[in-house]
Amino acid sequence: MNTEQIVLAKRPEGIPSDEIFKYETVEIDMPKKDEIQVEALYISVDPYMRGRMDDSDSYITPFQIDEPLSGHVVGKVIASEADGFDKGDIVTGQFPWQKLSNVPAKHVIKVSNTDVPLHLYLSVLGMPGQTAYHGLLKIGQPKEGETVVVSAASGAVGSVVGQIAKLKGAYVVGIAGGPEKTTYLTETLGFDASVNYKADDFSEQLAKAVPNGVDVYFENVGGLIADEVMKHLNQFARIPVCGAISGYNDTTIEHGPRIQPILIKSQALMKGFIVANYADDFANASKQLAQWVQEDKIKTKTSVMNGFEHIPEAFRNLFTGDNFGKQVVQVSDNI
Amino acid sequence: MNTEQIVLAKRPEGIPSDEIFKYETVEIDMPKKDEIQVEALYISVDPYMRGRMDDSDSYITPFQIDEPLSGHVVGKVIASEADGFDKGDIVTGQFPWQKLSNVPAKHVIKVSNTDVPLHLYLSVLGMPGQTAYHGLLKIGQPKEGETVVVSAASGAVGSVVGQIAKLKGAYVVGIAGGPEKTTYLTETLGFDASVNYKADDFSEQLAKAVPNGVDVYFENVGGLIADEVMKHLNQFARIPVCGAISGYNDTTIEHGPRIQPILIKSQALMKGFIVANYADDFANASKQLAQWVQEDKIKTKTSVMNGFEHIPEAFRNLFTGDNFGKQVVQVSDNI
Repeated sequence: MNTEQIVLAKRPEGIPSDEIFKYETVEIDMPKKDEIQVEALYISVDPYMRGRMDDSDSYITPFQIDEPLSGHVVGKVIASEADGFDKGDIVTGQFPWQKLSNVPAKHVIKVSNTDVPLHLYLSVLGMPGQTAYHGLLKIGQPKEGETVVVSAASGAVGSVVGQIAKLKGAYVVGIAGGPEKTTYLTETLGFDASVNYKADDFSEQLAKAVPNGVDVYFENVGGLIADEVMKHLNQFARIPVCGAISGYNDTTIEHGPRIQPILIKSQALMKGFIVANYADDFANASKQLAQWVQEDKIKTKTSVMNGFEHIPEAFRNLFTGDNFGKQVVQVSDNI
Repeated sequence: MNTEQIVLAKRPEGIPSDEIFKYETVEIDMPKKDEIQVEALYISVDPYMRGRMDDSDSYITPFQIDEPLSGHVVGKVIASEADGFDKGDIVTGQFPWQKLSNVPAKHVIKVSNTDVPLHLYLSVLGMPGQTAYHGLLKIGQPKEGETVVVSAASGAVGSVVGQIAKLKGAYVVGIAGGPEKTTYLTETLGFDASVNYKADDFSEQLAKAVPNGVDVYFENVGGLIADEVMKHLNQFARIPVCGAISGYNDTTIEHGPRIQPILIKSQALMKGFIVANYADDFANASKQLAQWVQEDKIKTKTSVMNGFEHIPEAFRNLFTGDNFGKQVVQVSDNI
């Protein structure tokens, strides 16, 4: 049997262009013992993947040239040679960008609740939700009445960060690009204020939005947006550093004001993290996040693009600011 | 009665030149109730004072023009109108740069052990020692066998940081300027390795000195030295940010590689602090530091300049790298 995949043709410079992606048709056998065959339903595109496209020493191994790209996928079991998995089961895991894949069962998580839109397992009920939960609560530790600022606030991680912070009693300010997104943050998600980083008077708007300074800054973006937020840090501020998307496509190392004097002045804490650091607590977080979603205390927005061939375009949207909400690609109608 | 003082004549640009300091003779009364009159014996010059010379929003109030500069002083009680203080007592506190001062007794600490060189109360047994102790142990939290790197390692704070880290079983690497200082670190203080940041091959030397990467980087310096250390951070590294002396005299905001990607890659923690954050634990630390000094487990080096009129020169030495060890100025022979 044949299936389609997308491989990395060459390493990108700057924003990944079409030439770095190559579509290939490959043969796929039946699954071996302890493997299952999964048909991809939704494929996730996430900013961190850009780092894996470079041949650099990072916290995860780089994608290899001529090998398929991969990431989080929600799929359906087509055939199983593994205990505990049956045909028709819905599963998630880190799979190749491939319509059909044989994967070791030990790398697969079976989804028990299929009453929610399945693509939520790529956002609030998946890696981005876990990222928001642990980064905010373990590092940010917002207290009631404190001010929490989050960048990329309408995105998959940021939108959950802001809503959890609200549930914890914080005053929440979101930074996003354009009036549609900023309105969504205050009107739909219940943020206390939102600021459009594309506005000419972003700096003044931000200052007005944080009259009591900033106690927690959940960092998704870096760059000039971060520079502005840092001007408002309160004493003992906490900055979970989740991402720095503004620099992901830079071909040189981005420079900015040195951080040491800023951290001393506010006696602030800054900590980088990846979601895998909190694997011990995934189960707890999953339960809590699912409950909040079911109680409609956390709302989500997903931008679904249709068709396997559109994955590169969906991925690029993450960096141009053209997507709104969690970006996923639906690659099968077999739902 | 008259006494001499040094006031801030104008705000400095860059390294403070002689013109910013003005010597004045002022009249001093006898102390009032609950005050004591102190004759300064040793006056401390410390890098953080440079920040107070600017009219900027910092964690401590700026020095005022035409007002005396001030800082930590070890002095002798000349006259007392306060309970618990007698003529001849040795005291420390934050006093003006003045030969004689009347100070409220509540701002004064009486020194109980006068068997040690009294200027140690401006270094290991004073604010720099407390800074080293709390920054390293509370934020850095070195574990046995881990690698601790400290910059400005032969200085008042850095030398204590490195020696405490050794006492905790860490592998300790000091960064200092010039062979005399680096030799002192390994031969006298027992550091495992030391690196001369003025050497052309500093980057290569540092890489060789930290074969197992860096778990704790005690930051006193910032700038290009920090950039090199950051290249070697291990996963979950901790960076207590105590100072960034390389930029203190800059007239513009210093730029460098943005820190966010570095912190994510290593999932490192960076925290700014000032010693006052740990005031609750000063007494414990004092006791422990005094014990280590008495047991000769912590060695110190003090650079004593003689004469009240040399305070500005001693202060400038902090930024030119010309001092070696804790810089103090002896301003009286009445010891």
